Amino acid sequence: MGAGSDRGRRTPGGAAAHTGRRGHGDGLRRLLRPRHIAVFGGESAAEAIRQCRAIGFTGEVWPVHPHRDSIEGLPCRRSVGELPQAPDAALVAVPREASIPVLAELSAHGAGGAVCYAAGFAEDGADGARLQERLREAAGAMPVVGPNCIGVLNYLDGSALWADQHGGTRVARGVAVITQSGNIAQNMTMQRRSVPLGYVITAGNGAVTGVPQLMEGLLDDPRVTAIGLHLEGIDDVPAFSRAALKALAAGVPVVALKTGSSELGARANLSHTSSLAGSDVLCDALFRRLGIARVHEVGTFLETLKLLHVHGPQDGTRITSASCSGGEAALIADVAQRHGAELPELPAEVAARLRRVLGERVHVANPLDYHTYIWGDAEAQRDCFTALLGAGFDMNLLLLDVPRADRCAPELWTTTLEAYTAAARASGAPACVVSSLPEGLPEETGSRLLAEGIAPMHGMADCVRALAAAASIGAARRRHAGTGTLPPGPSGPAPEGPAPARRGGPGGALDEYEAKQALSAHGVPTPRGAATGQGGDGAADEAAALAATLGFPVVVKALSPGLAHKSEVGGVRTGLADEGAVREAVAAMAPLADRFLIERMVPGAVAELVVGVRHDPRFGRALTLGSGGVLVELVRDTATLLLPASRAEIEETLGSLRAWPVLRGFRAGPAGDVAAAVEAVSAVAAYAQREDVTEVEVNPLLVLPEGHGAVAVDAVVRYAGHEHTDENEEVTHG
Amino acid sequence: MGAGSDRGRRTPGGAAAHTGRRGHGDGLRRLLRPRHIAVFGGESAAEAIRQCRAIGFTGEVWPVHPHRDSIEGLPCRRSVGELPQAPDAALVAVPREASIPVLAELSAHGAGGAVCYAAGFAEDGADGARLQERLREAAGAMPVVGPNCIGVLNYLDGSALWADQHGGTRVARGVAVITQSGNIAQNMTMQRRSVPLGYVITAGNGAVTGVPQLMEGLLDDPRVTAIGLHLEGIDDVPAFSRAALKALAAGVPVVALKTGSSELGARANLSHTSSLAGSDVLCDALFRRLGIARVHEVGTFLETLKLLHVHGPQDGTRITSASCSGGEAALIADVAQRHGAELPELPAEVAARLRRVLGERVHVANPLDYHTYIWGDAEAQRDCFTALLGAGFDMNLLLLDVPRADRCAPELWTTTLEAYTAAARASGAPACVVSSLPEGLPEETGSRLLAEGIAPMHGMADCVRALAAAASIGAARRRHAGTGTLPPGPSGPAPEGPAPARRGGPGGALDEYEAKQALSAHGVPTPRGAATGQGGDGAADEAAALAATLGFPVVVKALSPGLAHKSEVGGVRTGLADEGAVREAVAAMAPLADRFLIERMVPGAVAELVVGVRHDPRFGRALTLGSGGVLVELVRDTATLLLPASRAEIEETLGSLRAWPVLRGFRAGPAGDVAAAVEAVSAVAAYAQREDVTEVEVNPLLVLPEGHGAVAVDAVVRYAGHEHTDENEEVTHG
Repeated sequence: MGAGSDRGRRTPGGAAAHTGRRGHGDGLRRLLRPRHIAVFGGESAAEAIRQCRAIGFTGEVWPVHPHRDSIEGLPCRRSVGELPQAPDAALVAVPREASIPVLAELSAHGAGGAVCYAAGFAEDGADGARLQERLREAAGAMPVVGPNCIGVLNYLDGSALWADQHGGTRVARGVAVITQSGNIAQNMTMQRRSVPLGYVITAGNGAVTGVPQLMEGLLDDPRVTAIGLHLEGIDDVPAFSRAALKALAAGVPVVALKTGSSELGARANLSHTSSLAGSDVLCDALFRRLGIARVHEVGTFLETLKLLHVHGPQDGTRITSASCSGGEAALIADVAQRHGAELPELPAEVAARLRRVLGERVHVANPLDYHTYIWGDAEAQRDCFTALLGAGFDMNLLLLDVPRADRCAPELWTTTLEAYTAAARASGAPACVVSSLPEGLPEETGSRLLAEGIAPMHGMADCVRALAAAASIGAARRRHAGTGTLPPGPSGPAPEGPAPARRGGPGGALDEYEAKQALSAHGVPTPRGAATGQGGDGAADEAAALAATLGFPVVVKALSPGLAHKSEVGGVRTGLADEGAVREAVAAMAPLADRFLIERMVPGAVAELVVGVRHDPRFGRALTLGSGGVLVELVRDTATLLLPASRAEIEETLGSLRAWPVLRGFRAGPAGDVAAAVEAVSAVAAYAQREDVTEVEVNPLLVLPEGHGAVAVDAVVRYAGHEHTDENEEVTHG
Repeated sequence: MGAGSDRGRRTPGGAAAHTGRRGHGDGLRRLLRPRHIAVFGGESAAEAIRQCRAIGFTGEVWPVHPHRDSIEGLPCRRSVGELPQAPDAALVAVPREASIPVLAELSAHGAGGAVCYAAGFAEDGADGARLQERLREAAGAMPVVGPNCIGVLNYLDGSALWADQHGGTRVARGVAVITQSGNIAQNMTMQRRSVPLGYVITAGNGAVTGVPQLMEGLLDDPRVTAIGLHLEGIDDVPAFSRAALKALAAGVPVVALKTGSSELGARANLSHTSSLAGSDVLCDALFRRLGIARVHEVGTFLETLKLLHVHGPQDGTRITSASCSGGEAALIADVAQRHGAELPELPAEVAARLRRVLGERVHVANPLDYHTYIWGDAEAQRDCFTALLGAGFDMNLLLLDVPRADRCAPELWTTTLEAYTAAARASGAPACVVSSLPEGLPEETGSRLLAEGIAPMHGMADCVRALAAAASIGAARRRHAGTGTLPPGPSGPAPEGPAPARRGGPGGALDEYEAKQALSAHGVPTPRGAATGQGGDGAADEAAALAATLGFPVVVKALSPGLAHKSEVGGVRTGLADEGAVREAVAAMAPLADRFLIERMVPGAVAELVVGVRHDPRFGRALTLGSGGVLVELVRDTATLLLPASRAEIEETLGSLRAWPVLRGFRAGPAGDVAAAVEAVSAVAAYAQREDVTEVEVNPLLVLPEGHGAVAVDAVVRYAGHEHTDENEEVTHG
């Protein structure tokens, strides 16, 4: 962050202007890994030259300036036309208006790509937005990072299209970070935790080249071991999904530090279930589908990238832990449990071998407090660690804080580190050294461990979070490897089937009977029922006759597509046992509606679910499943996934609900018909993907005992054209 | 951690031997702040001398050694008797057997106190435990820290009764840390985050002087600004409580890093509600009562102590945030929401003033992204920060990572820090500078900020956690200031009232009728009901007659104190509408019991609660409140507090349940009679404090609509002498 540059502020509304960003292929490759660089501007261009030199860029750097003869000792060209050849990359650090002709010339001359440093575009009001449109036109087919960004750092090749300070150094392989914040990018380069940064890219406004295109560009570089995204939002979900799926296919793990989770906090009093799926929840659903691990702090983000760099995605989170302290063993046990790792019992032969090495006085367990008897004894320590690393778990942790070299003599710690390194080398088992305080692992120690293939992890909690994140990526990979296909993108084909009847409710809502008929035609079981055809005095007789045909007890409901809160205004009567009761109910509801739905009661439900599908303009259709009753209200027991979704995904999502034990047969209760529930949810989802349907909510879906099915006893369907304005509207049954 | 010393491993069973530890008064003061120190031993004594010199101890140090003439240049005495006077403090770092006569001599000669360094005592089996008993005898009235510890570091006066390396430096005022782990103590002294450590004490086995005594000793030193406890358990709850209450009264905040929370994880399938109150939950309840803030990581522990050192306990968690980055503003918004701080809207006049300083292009909000237009402009930055700090919130944060001095020129960051410091000075408002990565605040920067009264906070999440912890301590203080009294200790007086009837159930359990009679006699409302007096054929007639007197509908229950799972074995029938149904029910239950309870049904409950009291040998009686039904089963909606508890505490605890909205009238439902529920819970608690009662469980306590009371419809009472062995036993109603 130099004078005048916190590059990468959001554009108004939180999303960069992004219509029609392009894939760039070769141009992007030249921009990210340039052989020659042209720099435009004064002090910023000089800074970029200095930064290229500082990290050892070996290609040519060509300053272009209309008046100056040289910058940082390099002769200046007057214009793009005077360059010896079309540059692979250009840093354009001139005022915003002046940037546009420069970009146009670069594009016309066949430059690979450019960074546009100036601010004052779409993030800065209507004038800026118009200027950004001109910038897009000027760029033509050429990729441009920015505007309103610091630039692109490539620590693999030493190119710094970066008009400011940074703290990184060269690496041979490394992780890539793309962020929408210049300031946070700069802070990340200052890290002292041995994260091998390969690329750091500030996307800025992403006017021409957005995060998805940059991800694809990075996937072209085999030296990139993992990609980290710091995002404030996802504005082009299909492009983002394509890029993420390419990463998944290429085996490059992706971690996201997405901000905006506090949105949810601002929406504390949600009564409409579907609206629980705010955009942050949809992001989570998208990340899960795409195998992207989400983290919540900058430190966790870097630790996760580092772990992925060293060890890649994980099969699980079963760990061993070794420490020369019972206190640390107790700490890691707590931290593991809080953040998602397991410390299983050691296999018998491993425990026996440890007992031989450590002697009678040491209690052998996992986490292992190996005691001080072998402290300083390199050979015994190596034997101890080799035995422990033979447990065959997913990951092995040595807990150790290296003392301050300015105040202590750390020889005995070095002995321990060397013993662990030797054991890891001998056993081939994956290993981390973990400090309890981030400053407990000096950079020199971290670098040495990294060179040995051991991840130096700063902080126990972040280590475990990183491991859990790596395991979630591993699980996504196995899911996809198992099906042999990648998950579908956010938009899928519309299902076939009869169009919903439209009796003309206000602005596109079906009444409950119409909604149920439409769902039923698409395979969603609904109660046996029928609607009266006429209003007025005849309705009660007709209702009574229908009830007699259906069999008692029945439910009577007032039918009107605009009628929310039916039960609260007296529009629902349940448990009616004879024709008289039905007549009475219809008479009482006469002020509410002209038509009435008569349904056979559905008894004996094991559980109630809420099933909602809503269309989000960016994410497409999303399915929210929740447990009915107080759980969803008080505990927000809901989970969201994007459509289309497989039956396996739906069942997995059901399994993530707090109410899942109820469906499996809770205490003395019977198990629910989970297969039928999944089938019904799947049918609701398929129906909801019809292009003309904008929202479906089934509340509740009654799950009956195993073998008896699942029934949608209340349903709301809205279709295109309907403006759904009542945010607090709710739908309940009974 | 030097050769042979991870001091401070747990003794078997996790608790130090602790019978009858003593308060020490003046001796402890001499030990903690010695004017002269005797050191016993070879290399460890030499190390202690070096460490005393390293941190500038100005008193005399007297080595004692039977053979050596000098250690570290100081002449050796041969024995305690040859010392010029009784030393204020002694470090006894000789083999374990030899320690005992040395301690005896020191005690006899009037030494202030000693550190016993040797291991191999109670942590090391039965022989060690016997040796520890001898050590206790040898110590007499003299305080002894250890054995099995590293010792006592006093960075206020420069005394290092510490036979190993450490990383701290002298301070004029500071925080005190007591830990049961030598290794973690040592790591904490190596911190690079400007925590002003005043004392670091490793308690070891606490054979003579335990954590509570050490706390009280620290409270005698007015330079101690906060106390941090790293604990694996609390073995002497009354002594601990007394010490903590003294700290509360003295205004010295206490933070606890207690391990063992994963215990809960090991007990995943609890069906008995009261047993949810494992010892970790009881610790939480104790901490809450005593105003001790609990944290879960070493980093959070140190950050919280640092914040408390600078700013003390807090009135709340309303903050402002300033950053030169929208990305950081978005991060702090998320982190604040996740970890318990608020970012309220700025007062209108503050916002107006900021708009004047920052100009049209900057969107004024909280968190504030003050933009780069004023970056490097000292005066404008100071004006901006002064305006923001005028908001009058509880705390003000400047988000800033200082770049690496080895790779960057940090002048502009220094300008910003100086502007913030000037603003804080001018406004007098409490302020922190917060880095996103812990390494983003170098030690030199931290020291400068500390000297200015600004807390240098390492990591956004830990900063917010520290603030929330400080606010919880502030809240506890206000509670106690409000009542004018300190909270009671864990044991209170036994209430008066009739003794429970003991009809002779197995091993001390009352049957349900007896339990309800006992509770009713103590003011707990129970349903109208009566029990049959006889078994056999007459029971059905008697039951029918009782039911007729009570009025229908009734419930019939089989009465037998050993009968768990009554409803599952057919021992409960509800909703019986006439005498015939009652007779039939009794006949069907004849195989289960000889006696039967007939009760009038209680209709119309708003909510069901579970109320349990159990006696814990260390913590005394604890009351667990939970919501009934699926919430407690699936979501563990319970909260625990120690007895005795005031009505206000009980109501506050009810208010912490997920089910609280139900009690307040959820959706269209009526509000429950909260006052009656609190009264009933309070009566259950009072009854359960009878000395002879070991367990009471009311499940459910039905809360009726406002004005209609609360009724205990099922109850279990166990009294002294009963061994409760069936861990999975459960009690349900209906």
